[in-house]
Amino acid sequence: MADKAVLVVGAGDATGGAIARRFAREGYAACIVRREAASLADLAGQITAEGGQAHPFGCDARDEDQVVALFEKIETEVAPLEAVVFNIGANVRFPIVETTARVYRKVWEMAAFAGFLTGREAARHMTPRGRGTILFTGATASVRGREGFSAFSGAKHALRALAQSMARELGPQGVHVAHTLIDGAIDTQWIAQNFPDRYAMKDRDGILNPDHIADAYWMLHSQPRDAWTHELDLRPWTETW
Amino acid sequence: MADKAVLVVGAGDATGGAIARRFAREGYAACIVRREAASLADLAGQITAEGGQAHPFGCDARDEDQVVALFEKIETEVAPLEAVVFNIGANVRFPIVETTARVYRKVWEMAAFAGFLTGREAARHMTPRGRGTILFTGATASVRGREGFSAFSGAKHALRALAQSMARELGPQGVHVAHTLIDGAIDTQWIAQNFPDRYAMKDRDGILNPDHIADAYWMLHSQPRDAWTHELDLRPWTETW
Amino acid sequence: MADKAVLVVGAGDATGGAIARRFAREGYAACIVRREAASLADLAGQITAEGGQAHPFGCDARDEDQVVALFEKIETEVAPLEAVVFNIGANVRFPIVETTARVYRKVWEMAAFAGFLTGREAARHMTPRGRGTILFTGATASVRGREGFSAFSGAKHALRALAQSMARELGPQGVHVAHTLIDGAIDTQWIAQNFPDRYAMKDRDGILNPDHIADAYWMLHSQPRDAWTHELDLRPWTETW
Amino acid sequence: MADKAVLVVGAGDATGGAIARRFAREGYAACIVRREAASLADLAGQITAEGGQAHPFGCDARDEDQVVALFEKIETEVAPLEAVVFNIGANVRFPIVETTARVYRKVWEMAAFAGFLTGREAARHMTPRGRGTILFTGATASVRGREGFSAFSGAKHALRALAQSMARELGPQGVHVAHTLIDGAIDTQWIAQNFPDRYAMKDRDGILNPDHIADAYWMLHSQPRDAWTHELDLRPWTETW
Repeated sequence: MADKAVLVVGAGDATGGAIARRFAREGYAACIVRREAASLADLAGQITAEGGQAHPFGCDARDEDQVVALFEKIETEVAPLEAVVFNIGANVRFPIVETTARVYRKVWEMAAFAGFLTGREAARHMTPRGRGTILFTGATASVRGREGFSAFSGAKHALRALAQSMARELGPQGVHVAHTLIDGAIDTQWIAQNFPDRYAMKDRDGILNPDHIADAYWMLHSQPRDAWTHELDLRPWTETW
Repeated sequence: MADKAVLVVGAGDATGGAIARRFAREGYAACIVRREAASLADLAGQITAEGGQAHPFGCDARDEDQVVALFEKIETEVAPLEAVVFNIGANVRFPIVETTARVYRKVWEMAAFAGFLTGREAARHMTPRGRGTILFTGATASVRGREGFSAFSGAKHALRALAQSMARELGPQGVHVAHTLIDGAIDTQWIAQNFPDRYAMKDRDGILNPDHIADAYWMLHSQPRDAWTHELDLRPWTETW
Repeated sequence: MADKAVLVVGAGDATGGAIARRFAREGYAACIVRREAASLADLAGQITAEGGQAHPFGCDARDEDQVVALFEKIETEVAPLEAVVFNIGANVRFPIVETTARVYRKVWEMAAFAGFLTGREAARHMTPRGRGTILFTGATASVRGREGFSAFSGAKHALRALAQSMARELGPQGVHVAHTLIDGAIDTQWIAQNFPDRYAMKDRDGILNPDHIADAYWMLHSQPRDAWTHELDLRPWTETW
Repeated sequence: MADKAVLVVGAGDATGGAIARRFAREGYAACIVRREAASLADLAGQITAEGGQAHPFGCDARDEDQVVALFEKIETEVAPLEAVVFNIGANVRFPIVETTARVYRKVWEMAAFAGFLTGREAARHMTPRGRGTILFTGATASVRGREGFSAFSGAKHALRALAQSMARELGPQGVHVAHTLIDGAIDTQWIAQNFPDRYAMKDRDGILNPDHIADAYWMLHSQPRDAWTHELDLRPWTETW
């Protein structure tokens, strides 16, 4: 067994992957989670190639039993979780009358309910030890509703309320809960393919480098407990907001 | 058929009832909704006794088909909906590790998902007419997470994000969407029985009179479209905040 | 002597004038204030023509002695002040490096320091009576800094902090303190001359009618003390925000 | 001449001192400012003892001429300013009717106007170079008015509006503007003497260590421009908020 582990739920995108690699480089056993474990092979390979320890898990983070079992398995078979990152998004945009109940519910299940299950299980294992870090990835939609974003901003607002409620409850128990507000395009294949003009701003640092987001998550985890940050924003210098 | 109707989803408590009665006194056919229609008999009787028109409906506001059918029925059999009020709360308080997935989901279904269904159907019927008012009841938990309130503040934050997203989308289409922040105890049987010390403050106006909340809702509906309010708070003078 | 008075500091523009007239129609002796009393002749004439009672005062609201004397004079010679409205703005826009110290200071003196003097004197006279309303006019810049608005948003943020601090302190003493967020162009000569395209939206209610703003101020003053609003926004339906 | 400098305006307290020492350890010529240069001898000695370069300056930061001259002097005689920190507070607490105009004005001059002068001069020198960091120290009063805090929260709100306005304007010009929200007691002589119970929490990390605040400022300055933070909070784990 390793002596400490990080869990990244939603390690499928560039951000989750970069966070997992960052913690792995610091000596944490990187437990990485997507719905399908098979899709984690590349990331696990990268972590291993960089000298880290990778533990890929397939898990539907919206399923309570699966999430409970995931935490049990990591805690008993890998290492105590010192940091847990919830990084599942579900960005959709529809006019209100075209937003189906199925979409509204699904976005919430992915971006809020799964965050609740992850955060609660993290709390369950960390509070008896009186330490640990729980990090939630937010967005501008976490603090601002907008045309077409009834579903997405609803889920992200709920996730932020969870983070704030947990921070106020768990802080005095020694567990650090933080929430990020990521504002701007991230350097991903998806942006490259769907927003080429935006992606072209990469040359002048106009889109977020996932490694730099990961640095912020590492910094949050590293803060001494007399000076904890609960919320910070991250955006490219070029972004208008 | 009447010439205009108001719908109050969540007419079971003092607030919803007072709002329905207020609009009924102004000549609106009051469509009042609870899960069980039978429990609306008293309120319907009051409205009728005050010279108003009451239409009680049993409807599970978390059920898409039922909500869609409810709006259809009112629009075809009662009157065009000029105002729709979503007033379902679900205030629970649990430490995070004692918050069950069932509770977390149920609170969201009642306080956010049902609000989405109600708001969307209201939008569907109002936008073609280019007018109408949609009012959502919020609370302090809508803007602030707190120890024990992961579920409740999550749902209320999501409802506020819905209201804000809808306001930004529907305002320019002539539909007024507003959200209230009710902060403090309301004069209800529930407060009388469970918080007698708090209730005793009624003598000095220390708890909210539902009729005064209803006045604020009526005021919001009455605002001319050049000067709309999206959000206002309501609290007793004695409240510390 | 009349039996109750309202004071409007900053009665020079359309909004302040409309508020004074609204309260005058409700039977309040309208004490209206600008730097130069002579410039109040038109407004005073309107109030009188509508059957109201107008008391114009010249006062530099940034001068402590003048403000103290103004309140004394009204309280002893006109009537007890039941409502006090602070409505001085100072909207300027400069890039930060072109913002002179003189401008930065002057905007603060007009929009924040004068508000402090007005609010404090209102508190001094109202708290012994255990009632009264103090209303501050805010703007979007009260809650959001923006390029070019270092001076204006600084002053408006300070005024909002004053309103919030006073509300929390004076509420439990029976004095209602509220703050408005006015977002959008108001129907004034200045908008007509400087923003003709914007002004053309008047035909479709796209700019704020000062009389409707005044209705909101009157509503705030009329709220029973068990259901006070501290903050509300007002914007035309067409406004994007 | 050194090749890069940091300026800390308000280097008199533990926080300002720790920030100056942190940047000095990273190789920045530390320009430290208080009203009286003489009072900077200890800090300058510490910096030198740690192998750093200290430049103490006496300057009344509320005086435009002095601030302009200070920047000129540093830029021509010390080094280009890569980071500027404004760290003057002015925490006072008075009921509104006991808040004198002199206090209200003085608190604003120290905590907001001096911040404007400092920020503007920093912008003037940094924007032509297209880089640099400007950091403003905020507090809970920056985002929340409270009984007794009309003056302090007014000034801190104004400073936050300045930071936000400057960030939106200067970000796209390559200058990073950030604002911190420090919530909780800091390990200072003043807390030790005036709040001994609070100070006793130091044993369990219940008060902020100035060195850890300094780490956050250094982190903000070090962020690559594709992932800048504009605002973050810092508070001890024990703090209720």
